[in-house]
Amino acid sequence: MSGSNEFNDRYDVAVIGTGPGGVSAAITAKIRNKSVLLLGSPDLTGKLVKGHKILNYPGLPEVTGDALADALKKHLDSLDIAVTEDRIASVLAMDDYFMLLGSKNDIPYEATSLIIASGVVADKPIPGEVENLGNHVSYCATCDAMLYRGKPVVVVGYNPKEEEEAVFLAGVCSEVLYFPQYKAPTRWEDGSADAAAGAAVIRVVREKAASIAPDPAATLMNPAIILTTSEGNAYTSACIFVLRESIAPGQLVPGLETEGAHIRVDMQMQTNLPGCYACGDITGTPYQYIKAAGQGNVAALSASSYVDRVRTAKETAK
Amino acid sequence: MSGSNEFNDRYDVAVIGTGPGGVSAAITAKIRNKSVLLLGSPDLTGKLVKGHKILNYPGLPEVTGDALADALKKHLDSLDIAVTEDRIASVLAMDDYFMLLGSKNDIPYEATSLIIASGVVADKPIPGEVENLGNHVSYCATCDAMLYRGKPVVVVGYNPKEEEEAVFLAGVCSEVLYFPQYKAPTRWEDGSADAAAGAAVIRVVREKAASIAPDPAATLMNPAIILTTSEGNAYTSACIFVLRESIAPGQLVPGLETEGAHIRVDMQMQTNLPGCYACGDITGTPYQYIKAAGQGNVAALSASSYVDRVRTAKETAK
Repeated sequence: MSGSNEFNDRYDVAVIGTGPGGVSAAITAKIRNKSVLLLGSPDLTGKLVKGHKILNYPGLPEVTGDALADALKKHLDSLDIAVTEDRIASVLAMDDYFMLLGSKNDIPYEATSLIIASGVVADKPIPGEVENLGNHVSYCATCDAMLYRGKPVVVVGYNPKEEEEAVFLAGVCSEVLYFPQYKAPTRWEDGSADAAAGAAVIRVVREKAASIAPDPAATLMNPAIILTTSEGNAYTSACIFVLRESIAPGQLVPGLETEGAHIRVDMQMQTNLPGCYACGDITGTPYQYIKAAGQGNVAALSASSYVDRVRTAKETAK
Repeated sequence: MSGSNEFNDRYDVAVIGTGPGGVSAAITAKIRNKSVLLLGSPDLTGKLVKGHKILNYPGLPEVTGDALADALKKHLDSLDIAVTEDRIASVLAMDDYFMLLGSKNDIPYEATSLIIASGVVADKPIPGEVENLGNHVSYCATCDAMLYRGKPVVVVGYNPKEEEEAVFLAGVCSEVLYFPQYKAPTRWEDGSADAAAGAAVIRVVREKAASIAPDPAATLMNPAIILTTSEGNAYTSACIFVLRESIAPGQLVPGLETEGAHIRVDMQMQTNLPGCYACGDITGTPYQYIKAAGQGNVAALSASSYVDRVRTAKETAK
């Protein structure tokens, strides 16, 4: 890790999201001599890659989504900015830094400032999901699998990538019911049961998640949670893992002011939390690549000023 | 002129300015099927063309100002957007359109909506400033600091905010002479030297910048530039950063709400005048190409919606 930071393991700027907003923020923060933790998919978001021809990214006429992703990747490479492939399950705003809990790392990441560029969460939370979060509803298989060792669990997957999480859970839990919330076929056949050597069965149930509620029949020793589907069926398990690309921002960072699905920011991309900035689709419409890139730049400059102010305050206090 | 406009000579969207903000606005408005009048220099602004390497325009790593201008020009060409070379002297907000008085055309231009992307213009450049721009005279610390790594630089700051730029440069350059062109005290004492851990000394010189000229004693390997002050002193350095924000945008469009040198806009780039939007440097700091491009996109989408609403209202009234 580079930067003139006095902390060995604290980044100046953490960026969540590798769409054009997050990439732009990381580029500008790095140029401002800040140490940058860029978190997300190294593929630079499936949404962008799958995009049709983009006509209005100035300077790159008629660029395809793939070509833009490739150009952004090359830009990151040219500045030695690596993408840390991890999904942040939750963020805690500490006194003068942020603690980011990932799903691939037992030790939380630390950063003086935070830029949220995670895109809009297309899916509304399942009724009961937010209310029961932390009580047999989890956003992170890596974090919580061990709590349900030897027990049956449910996975609601919004993205084919979550199938890997189901495989991981099958190595720990007694049974995995997998509910794909996407049209693409899963790696397993619908209704099929699949078990690797020594792993539990994964059963694909192609039904739409409708609501989540605690099981009234559960006991203190055997708590349980029920997923009800639009098809009218109820599935009882020890935990429901709700896995989607990005978590609703208010859930991700407690205390963050939101407006519907969006984070409230000012013209400098500042949220209501000191040191926390946002850019791109998550700040509201229009959902446009070049807008996201522009806002990422502004967010990074605001975050860099904030980091400088925190550093000066610390030095003065010495 | 294209577009489904009922007026022969009234454009849907007029864009003033051909920097990245104006170009981006014209591109998005055109893609939204609007007739576009793009006013400004076909060179896509001297400021951009003369700029050094731009490191943070995502997707175009280490693009030079010339190369970015060229890419933007090609983008305009690919969409058949012509640049009308004219300087707008004043704009009148009529009932449901804008009248633009140019200096090259006796007949005013008319447009249903207006996007101001004219950039911030220096009231009075320092003699020698414009002539040497791009040759050891720079308007952007973020863009050009790395070119002068380990070398002494001069900052002419017209605004206390530029002190932050001096701090940034001190982290990269060997020495920073800071010339405040304002009366307010700086964060440092006059004549004082200040250095954060690992950063270069910043020395405040309270003298008025009078002229800029290349150092005749400099060699090809060690080029240098000289700032002469009204006090009669000469300061040689590797680069003079001239950092200011100065324009009176309220003079262009009477009734337009401004904040100092900037036009007041909301997150959708809407000014206080219906149908009038702004983007880029004129909306405030930071002055960054990619920010301008992003805001241009937002302004064009807002203007397009406005044009659609005006058209619908007219059709309903028939």
